[in-house]
Amino acid sequence: MINSIALVGGTHGNEMSGIQLVQNWEDNGVPSQFSSLDITLYKANPAAIAANVRFLEEDLNRQFTNQALSSSRHTKTPNSLGSISQEQELAAAINAQLGPKGASTTDLVIDIHNTTSNMGATLIILDTSDVYIKMARYVKQHMPEANILVEDEKPYHEHGYLCTTGKLGVMIEVGAQPQGVLREDVFLSTQKMAEVLLSFCIALNNNECDNLPPCEAFRLGENVSFPLNEEGNRTAMIHHSIQDNDFVPLMPGNPMFRGFDGKDIVWHGDEPTYPHFINEAAYHKLDVAFATSERIEI
Amino acid sequence: MINSIALVGGTHGNEMSGIQLVQNWEDNGVPSQFSSLDITLYKANPAAIAANVRFLEEDLNRQFTNQALSSSRHTKTPNSLGSISQEQELAAAINAQLGPKGASTTDLVIDIHNTTSNMGATLIILDTSDVYIKMARYVKQHMPEANILVEDEKPYHEHGYLCTTGKLGVMIEVGAQPQGVLREDVFLSTQKMAEVLLSFCIALNNNECDNLPPCEAFRLGENVSFPLNEEGNRTAMIHHSIQDNDFVPLMPGNPMFRGFDGKDIVWHGDEPTYPHFINEAAYHKLDVAFATSERIEI
Repeated sequence: MINSIALVGGTHGNEMSGIQLVQNWEDNGVPSQFSSLDITLYKANPAAIAANVRFLEEDLNRQFTNQALSSSRHTKTPNSLGSISQEQELAAAINAQLGPKGASTTDLVIDIHNTTSNMGATLIILDTSDVYIKMARYVKQHMPEANILVEDEKPYHEHGYLCTTGKLGVMIEVGAQPQGVLREDVFLSTQKMAEVLLSFCIALNNNECDNLPPCEAFRLGENVSFPLNEEGNRTAMIHHSIQDNDFVPLMPGNPMFRGFDGKDIVWHGDEPTYPHFINEAAYHKLDVAFATSERIEI
Repeated sequence: MINSIALVGGTHGNEMSGIQLVQNWEDNGVPSQFSSLDITLYKANPAAIAANVRFLEEDLNRQFTNQALSSSRHTKTPNSLGSISQEQELAAAINAQLGPKGASTTDLVIDIHNTTSNMGATLIILDTSDVYIKMARYVKQHMPEANILVEDEKPYHEHGYLCTTGKLGVMIEVGAQPQGVLREDVFLSTQKMAEVLLSFCIALNNNECDNLPPCEAFRLGENVSFPLNEEGNRTAMIHHSIQDNDFVPLMPGNPMFRGFDGKDIVWHGDEPTYPHFINEAAYHKLDVAFATSERIEI
């Protein structure tokens, strides 16, 4: 049974679609068809939202490992905080409200994000246990244009994501949308996926999700970095043939970067890969160009 | 004659196309066909570039009014600076190098920007005196896809833009590109417009620009704000029918906003307008939705 649900926006303060959806439902109420669910609306990083930045000191959505949470010492007085960042402090407070992680009072945390990559409406799951498989299949059935991204390279609780404060936790990731901008198409896709997930909870509670057909998903591979010169400056950009083509297969020998010298750099894998998070602004400082994935069926 | 030219990137530290173009030409040299020109390559706000933000304290590209420059007191010692922002300090230093404004040693300052609005490659001129008309016509002749935007609502020197440190000054504005992202299409358009402007300088110096045909341009009107409720929160978003349609005529009675209540808000002008800077991220905090313009011939 999934009864208590936290719907979270503003984990990154410049990702407007989740912030706006939470704001609208706070102002006007959650749609009445979900009245049987116990839904908490939550803006995760109000200071970052006010400043219209991703975060103030460090990425809030990486502060929910058990290690980071235990080192944040939320109960200490400000003077003894030492080098604890504002986001580490905030993570401890959120964990106390929505979690605590590993013994959570919240059945499901849905954390809403957007990306400058053209990933469409993507549901990110961190585990392929039965309930997540049902959720993914239900989403694909009711929103065929959605993508399912599986990040199960490590156990659920070892991820540092905010959504792992819930017994269950997933992320909605929709693009392409610039930071600090709300696009109608991205907002409506975000709202639709949030509503489909809430409908899934009701259907699951009614035992209506046992015979859903298998669906396509993408399993996260690894990050691919921009090529850099000796000074650490980029020597190439995302090739126009893959820009905006997230989850479209990139074939061996096909270009992935266009060098500033005019030469192409090709994908050297033995197999096609399904790139995503292509040219995501938030990964600029890390020089991450995109992430690979393999197509699977779940 | 236009001989000394400053080509500037990074006036806003998260606008990557100008930063990358200046970096590439620093690394590899300015293309040889422009060797007759005295070109200075310049990154305006290195601290903002390093932080990958538009600015640290306030918008550098509004600090070049005579009033702001005179109040920055660049020669004072740090202890007596009082409330002078880092960008005001920086503006005074840039003005000393590229200007000084009103008595400049630089014939032309070309300042390169990008926008989340789908404005294509746009040349922004601040004056319609003879040389700017020639420049605009030359650009349209050699880059027909370009837009010319005229912001001449006040005299050239009263603008606070960095480019006004030059005897002549213009801005290149290309979109759509998210902040912190470099797109190949936007980069190549930016590079093309920079090269066309340098070619214009050579052509002008050779008296080859006297008989160019008139061209279309857009004269800036006014900013249109998002509708807000009593708490100052937005009640609507840019309507999908105008999103990405910068410089496409918006007809009286046609929708410009989609309310979160599902209702459309229409353009109430008596005439068609040519919206641009539609949904620009940098204007988020100002709640500016777009700017109007009228179509003119110059």
